[in-house]
Amino acid sequence: MKVGFIGLGHMGSGIAANILNAGHELVVWNRSPDPAKALAEKGAHIAGAPEEALQGAILFSMLANDDAVREVGLDGALLTHAKPGLTHVNLATISIDFASRLAKLHAERRLGYVAAPVFGRPDVAAAGKLLVIVAGSHTNIAKVRPLLECIGRRVEVAGEAPEQANLFKIAGNFMLAAALESMGEAFALVRKGGIDAHVFQDVLSNSLFACPVYQGYGGAIVNAKFEPAGFSVKLGMKDVRLALDAARDLSVPLPLASLVHDHFIEATVAGLADKDWSSLGGFLASKAGL
Amino acid sequence: MKVGFIGLGHMGSGIAANILNAGHELVVWNRSPDPAKALAEKGAHIAGAPEEALQGAILFSMLANDDAVREVGLDGALLTHAKPGLTHVNLATISIDFASRLAKLHAERRLGYVAAPVFGRPDVAAAGKLLVIVAGSHTNIAKVRPLLECIGRRVEVAGEAPEQANLFKIAGNFMLAAALESMGEAFALVRKGGIDAHVFQDVLSNSLFACPVYQGYGGAIVNAKFEPAGFSVKLGMKDVRLALDAARDLSVPLPLASLVHDHFIEATVAGLADKDWSSLGGFLASKAGL
Amino acid sequence: MKVGFIGLGHMGSGIAANILNAGHELVVWNRSPDPAKALAEKGAHIAGAPEEALQGAILFSMLANDDAVREVGLDGALLTHAKPGLTHVNLATISIDFASRLAKLHAERRLGYVAAPVFGRPDVAAAGKLLVIVAGSHTNIAKVRPLLECIGRRVEVAGEAPEQANLFKIAGNFMLAAALESMGEAFALVRKGGIDAHVFQDVLSNSLFACPVYQGYGGAIVNAKFEPAGFSVKLGMKDVRLALDAARDLSVPLPLASLVHDHFIEATVAGLADKDWSSLGGFLASKAGL
Amino acid sequence: MKVGFIGLGHMGSGIAANILNAGHELVVWNRSPDPAKALAEKGAHIAGAPEEALQGAILFSMLANDDAVREVGLDGALLTHAKPGLTHVNLATISIDFASRLAKLHAERRLGYVAAPVFGRPDVAAAGKLLVIVAGSHTNIAKVRPLLECIGRRVEVAGEAPEQANLFKIAGNFMLAAALESMGEAFALVRKGGIDAHVFQDVLSNSLFACPVYQGYGGAIVNAKFEPAGFSVKLGMKDVRLALDAARDLSVPLPLASLVHDHFIEATVAGLADKDWSSLGGFLASKAGL
Repeated sequence: MKVGFIGLGHMGSGIAANILNAGHELVVWNRSPDPAKALAEKGAHIAGAPEEALQGAILFSMLANDDAVREVGLDGALLTHAKPGLTHVNLATISIDFASRLAKLHAERRLGYVAAPVFGRPDVAAAGKLLVIVAGSHTNIAKVRPLLECIGRRVEVAGEAPEQANLFKIAGNFMLAAALESMGEAFALVRKGGIDAHVFQDVLSNSLFACPVYQGYGGAIVNAKFEPAGFSVKLGMKDVRLALDAARDLSVPLPLASLVHDHFIEATVAGLADKDWSSLGGFLASKAGL
Repeated sequence: MKVGFIGLGHMGSGIAANILNAGHELVVWNRSPDPAKALAEKGAHIAGAPEEALQGAILFSMLANDDAVREVGLDGALLTHAKPGLTHVNLATISIDFASRLAKLHAERRLGYVAAPVFGRPDVAAAGKLLVIVAGSHTNIAKVRPLLECIGRRVEVAGEAPEQANLFKIAGNFMLAAALESMGEAFALVRKGGIDAHVFQDVLSNSLFACPVYQGYGGAIVNAKFEPAGFSVKLGMKDVRLALDAARDLSVPLPLASLVHDHFIEATVAGLADKDWSSLGGFLASKAGL
Repeated sequence: MKVGFIGLGHMGSGIAANILNAGHELVVWNRSPDPAKALAEKGAHIAGAPEEALQGAILFSMLANDDAVREVGLDGALLTHAKPGLTHVNLATISIDFASRLAKLHAERRLGYVAAPVFGRPDVAAAGKLLVIVAGSHTNIAKVRPLLECIGRRVEVAGEAPEQANLFKIAGNFMLAAALESMGEAFALVRKGGIDAHVFQDVLSNSLFACPVYQGYGGAIVNAKFEPAGFSVKLGMKDVRLALDAARDLSVPLPLASLVHDHFIEATVAGLADKDWSSLGGFLASKAGL
Repeated sequence: MKVGFIGLGHMGSGIAANILNAGHELVVWNRSPDPAKALAEKGAHIAGAPEEALQGAILFSMLANDDAVREVGLDGALLTHAKPGLTHVNLATISIDFASRLAKLHAERRLGYVAAPVFGRPDVAAAGKLLVIVAGSHTNIAKVRPLLECIGRRVEVAGEAPEQANLFKIAGNFMLAAALESMGEAFALVRKGGIDAHVFQDVLSNSLFACPVYQGYGGAIVNAKFEPAGFSVKLGMKDVRLALDAARDLSVPLPLASLVHDHFIEATVAGLADKDWSSLGGFLASKAGL
């Protein structure tokens, strides 16, 4: 199948490679040329302009945020160049408000639109083992599912409205941030009481909290290992904002998200914007004088 | 070995039964007589007065809170009747301030004192599979460890000061409460966006959050199954207060604990005091109009 | 002087009347015609289209929010019809981000732009006794100051960048909301302790807190008099959001604003959106079971 | 009238002097001797032991907190030496739980007990212009009122249960702390937007917030003048804790008090414990990078 791909950052490159590896014809476009070259060596075609990526049956895009999607024109101008019948799979974590508008803008042009944000860091993307949350019409999902299965170990349907996949992702990322806050506060408390936080983290993450979030991030916090950033404070703060924005739209009080967001602002002021977002835990320790 | 046991509530009864099953001579005392009778049928001796439970090598106590320990006299009068050399294993989740004073009061009378709070619900206690956190001197821990291994699948040392085991437990319970808050907010958010919370909970608790806390409590919240209470809002609130009290003593800001505590007060006002503490999740949904 | 006025709501009508009373030639435009008629009876000219209001030396606008300003075209189309040299005085409480963009859009067209948000309710506006916060270039402020002095008892300069007046207003309104939260919590506390909240409010608002905010809103809360709404929960929530949005832009943690915002969402869910925003106090009492 | 006075700190000394100046026979006792000497020069008798201060018709005490009251024995031993019919006026800000117990302990010994906490700093105490909040039986209040009128410009009755005066005071102090938080956040916000915080504070504290709290503390914050401490962070934190403790007893959610309390902990960690509590404002500015 002929597939376009726009946005070859750390996540996008790994995902695109898996589509290519599955035997599809891939046309890639990226603002800066280097990531495209790496894929070209594996057989991808480099598009001279973004519209070339819209000439297949399916377009994937993986852009940083609402503004990046707007800048490339996927909410307007660029769509006018799309091949009739194209289905756009938007992998990015964007706001539910914008996701809903994108769905409408595509429908008006009789193009398919599917939101498919993913859970997983770049290494997981490269391994094709992402958790993919997808939302859109049954028809559109059926059309793109085989490709999603190339990039993820698991594909879950959030609903028929594309923005529901974004909300699912945003809510999940909020839960991750909440776990960071929880560990940060708890670790600071036990440390000030003279307990070895490594022991505390080890015991809990091998019992009640025996899961990747508490094991991985918990280990990062007790070892104060916040670089390289798999996912930065800056990006984490963006996603918590998306949760707060969704909460405004949907009238849901989210005081824990508000709390974490204010801490991310403080952490940013303290110079941690580009550190891994688990550095929130280190920042909370510093508030306790540790 | 001759072992005393004071406090035969849901947790205490199960624990005492496992000590008995391991072949020890057990002298039990409880304020209300029925739980003691059940153990007597299995071979325990019923003490006519609490001091009889202090005539062995080891005394276990499992009382509700600081006040219950004081009422039975384990911070004073009752200790004067203890057999010389007795080591007291306090299983209760009490304040770190009181734990520290108890350790001192026992030392003054040349009695051993070990704090050994446990993680696990009554069914886990009955099965002898608790997670036991212990703190005290090496000698005392060595003495009681074989008994602790009868009641738990795992025994972890928090430190040499007994109150460290209490702090460990308190911090762990705070993390549990934080997870309830996190799920409650996230589930409310996705539900108001039209997503099936069962799907959301199922996906996350089988991936990033694939651990007992998110699976068990998450399931309770999405199914609104808050009875019978394995651990009530009332008890949960007590433990979050212990965390906040420890945070005062140790100068640690714990804004997430403060947040959860205020929600537990609200939930109590709303009539949920005796429901399972996972009903915090249901309460947060009601705040969002669900 | 020939002056235009767009936006004749409760606030705008009173302000426009004071400009008219000061002897200026006033051209008014409003989406719905009735408020314009009332002013026409006092001598105002009714514009047939909004652009007619831009043919004088100065244009005032008093629109509800960013979107209302956009809808009437004051961020674009409408400006192309402006008389050369026109200075636009924007009285609305809008976001600092949008205020900054409006300033730029006017400068590109060589039009003056001054932000002049006001403190005061409709009756204060009608009486010409508003507190006016103004920001813009010295020249522009000098030009419009005589008119601002017709509508306010006091005109204060916040800075040279127009958005600074908006930030000033937003921060002030946040402080008002914070006072509502503070009173709401304190009144609930004393009431549950059996104290007459009227006495508490009376004593404090005639001593340490002897000022309009605590006297007026404090009285409203203890008397549960939340209608008619001088300023609704809906508008209050909008302004707290503007504070939170400014805090994002400027990297300032505002946890108290976050707290109040979440309470406004809850109050909205509880059906209070159109009540006076002092009903936050009544809502907080209900959380305590009062 | 013969009057005893225990506790001659900054507040107590000023209050005692006013009782003396009103022509009463005053017997004073203080742990450290110097403050008593100063009063002796004005005609007070120095008690050789605290019990001597309980031989008049009325005893005033002004001690730092619950523990200080206990240490001097006013919850037990010392009361057994009281002259029959003595009425004890406790001026201290203590917990409502302890106030209630003190009332009971006095009643059991047929002694009168009146709680009369005061609003005002040491200079106000010296000037005899405190705001006195009193609670107790009508008879007891009638008996002590003439003396209270010597020390305050205003005496207000909170209720018949002594602890109600303490709750009144605690709730009032919470409102003060909340105002500090509100100003601290608002000032940080405007400053980061380039507004002169002096102007902002000046305008608001001469309009909507034209009252002592916003004028005095607002001025301290914008001028970063936090020494000498009229009322320290340490004492402020103690009083917010009393509010939180009362909220626990009375089941009232107080999230704003929780928020301020966590900030006081952070400020303490940052070394501000002995600075004036308005330094909370300076601390909040530092969180924003100012």
